[in-house]
Amino acid sequence: MTTDLIPGNAVIGQSGGPTAVINQSVVGVIEGLRHHAKAGTGGPIAKILGMRHGVRGLTQGDFHDLTNTPQDFLDRLATSPSAGLGSTRDKPDADYCQRIFEACEKHNIRYFFYIGGNDSSDACRIVNELSTQKGYELRCFHVPKTVDNDLMENDHTPGFPSAARFVATACMADFLDNISLPGIKINVIMGRHAGFLTAASALARRSDRPEHEGPSTDGPQLIYLPEVPFDTDRFTQDVAKIYEAKGRCHIAVSEGISDKDGNPIGATLIKNAQTDDHGNVQLSGSGALGDALATHLKDALTPAGGKPLRVRADTFGYIQRCWPDASPVDAIEARGAGRFAAHLACKGEQDGSVAIRRDSEPGPLEHYESGFKRIDLAQVAAKTRHMPKEFIEGHNNVSQAFLNYARPLIGELPRFERL
Amino acid sequence: MTTDLIPGNAVIGQSGGPTAVINQSVVGVIEGLRHHAKAGTGGPIAKILGMRHGVRGLTQGDFHDLTNTPQDFLDRLATSPSAGLGSTRDKPDADYCQRIFEACEKHNIRYFFYIGGNDSSDACRIVNELSTQKGYELRCFHVPKTVDNDLMENDHTPGFPSAARFVATACMADFLDNISLPGIKINVIMGRHAGFLTAASALARRSDRPEHEGPSTDGPQLIYLPEVPFDTDRFTQDVAKIYEAKGRCHIAVSEGISDKDGNPIGATLIKNAQTDDHGNVQLSGSGALGDALATHLKDALTPAGGKPLRVRADTFGYIQRCWPDASPVDAIEARGAGRFAAHLACKGEQDGSVAIRRDSEPGPLEHYESGFKRIDLAQVAAKTRHMPKEFIEGHNNVSQAFLNYARPLIGELPRFERL
Repeated sequence: MTTDLIPGNAVIGQSGGPTAVINQSVVGVIEGLRHHAKAGTGGPIAKILGMRHGVRGLTQGDFHDLTNTPQDFLDRLATSPSAGLGSTRDKPDADYCQRIFEACEKHNIRYFFYIGGNDSSDACRIVNELSTQKGYELRCFHVPKTVDNDLMENDHTPGFPSAARFVATACMADFLDNISLPGIKINVIMGRHAGFLTAASALARRSDRPEHEGPSTDGPQLIYLPEVPFDTDRFTQDVAKIYEAKGRCHIAVSEGISDKDGNPIGATLIKNAQTDDHGNVQLSGSGALGDALATHLKDALTPAGGKPLRVRADTFGYIQRCWPDASPVDAIEARGAGRFAAHLACKGEQDGSVAIRRDSEPGPLEHYESGFKRIDLAQVAAKTRHMPKEFIEGHNNVSQAFLNYARPLIGELPRFERL
Repeated sequence: MTTDLIPGNAVIGQSGGPTAVINQSVVGVIEGLRHHAKAGTGGPIAKILGMRHGVRGLTQGDFHDLTNTPQDFLDRLATSPSAGLGSTRDKPDADYCQRIFEACEKHNIRYFFYIGGNDSSDACRIVNELSTQKGYELRCFHVPKTVDNDLMENDHTPGFPSAARFVATACMADFLDNISLPGIKINVIMGRHAGFLTAASALARRSDRPEHEGPSTDGPQLIYLPEVPFDTDRFTQDVAKIYEAKGRCHIAVSEGISDKDGNPIGATLIKNAQTDDHGNVQLSGSGALGDALATHLKDALTPAGGKPLRVRADTFGYIQRCWPDASPVDAIEARGAGRFAAHLACKGEQDGSVAIRRDSEPGPLEHYESGFKRIDLAQVAAKTRHMPKEFIEGHNNVSQAFLNYARPLIGELPRFERL
């Protein structure tokens, strides 16, 4: 197994928005390298280096030396949320990738592991091409990570199940709050282009409802995804209908909802919004979208001369990606994805991205099975996966197929009783 | 013990913002009545009724009959967040209290339990006075509840420890996010007049830091309470100083921060803000305050012509009061407060409010002890307790005395590892 190894150092980096389980993947890579390559014991892989703040640290020679980090420390790091090595929003262009490549040469790095989303896999791809062109043997692997769940070729991505678990739990509890003090409540959920995380709010609906009672009327009763063009008038009518019937309405809205021309509604609402290196206008870290929708509903639905309707908006914000109650499935898979990447590198693969494959049919958690496969970097790099059509129901709901898909991923939810 | 009982019915209601443990108190009252008065078994208390949406339901004769609700259901209800009976924001005036009194007469109610904050205890007080004037024997008890922790005569109030646990956990995880992707991060926390919940963010700072390293530099590095007049220029300077030193800054702000004349900063920022029956202008259910502070810092601290600083604001919102991971101490005390109220009523007390008393000195969780006492309704009714001076340090921090006070209440926090 180790005959194919090139002597040199390995480097691991984290990129993009952190998650509750991204440190599991770092630890998985380290464990995989130690297992296969006797890293740090005089084996062919001399050092395992962590990039501080991703490729930014790599180009500056700024590393954590992880070669001899004790296993018990790693086990605790793995269950700590957020990117332990530090993350970055830098999107390397050709020049930047050249500097990454030079840093690899300089530090005798022969194994390059980058944990992140589709832009991170694109950086991997470019660095990999550069090293091939220059005849420098560098094995480049991408390990998937994103709460948005928007990577191609993956059944789902590490980070998503834990964020979905947070969203579902928060919506369960907040729906009880909405019953208790009725009104219109909007919850704004992360996901710029893909609606998976917003869709996960539907897991909050009580699933143990007897069939003869018909579909759940639990909140959120309305779900707005970035995949479905958002029409403000239709939204207002949807809310009015439920509010008239129940005296309350519980709504989940993606931060990425866009009009029929694809313009994100939220982007125009944040004052001095930042645009990152990826060309994305800031959507998170602001309550502007929720507040604008709440103000709109208050104006549109309050009867003339009447007392203003009780309309409230919460934006779940960064805690949805860092809440320290990871889905058990997610924790295991994120660790496994890191180990699998190390395994591929050590058995002689030149490059690739790790993807999660589901081996079981939709069904209860106890039947859930998954595994990993190697895919080409180009299959995932710089591409975005959206909610498939069969996961979307009408313009304001998700389908049973989505619930079957997502339920095994998030672990057991608490059970609440109500009168 | 039961010789003093008046034959009749008992009624229990919940009022104001729900909490993670307010159902514990409902269940505690039921258990106390069953224990002392053999309620539902032909004993002197015939029925135990739950008011649907507090006094609003009572005046409309809208009840849940809880007399024979099975214990296993009650046990599950107790651990469910939010107000299971439904809550209300109605603030009864003299006329309203007259209608409450008439409803009690009509339904032969002789035991009145109301779980809520200082306005709920005031409603209890007025109804109690009315019944005394009319010579109708009605035993009126207030059971404390508020995440704001602002009730007089109480060491702390049920609901606060669980909300504080959420705030501390969220700030721990979000601080790691802030280290990972540096910038300026503002978290806006509930608490209109009292800063206890915002102060609880300080529990997020690592407490296991070796003494020789000096005070923790963990976030939040700056804490702004409603008790200290908020000065925007001073705030800007505070943030600039930490940002210059560290390249990041983690900030906790109360939704109730007010200028030197006592005007809440947030109240002017929410469009069409609602004013409730209590004269309070809406502060929650909006991201307006956080967004305004973020925009201000971006404008004030970005160098002329430079790239805008990364400034983000999250408003924790309603999940901080309903997150279903109650502090164990809080769950036990909320149940106990309900039982104690029933006990007082059954042993012949005419009226009163239950208050929590701490029986241990500040110290670790394992030495924590508390108990209950009866206080007069007037001692707690319509009054607000603020953070005592000795809990506040300077204009942007809390003291060690506050940490010693709060730490035993919130239970064990997760432990995170970092590189």
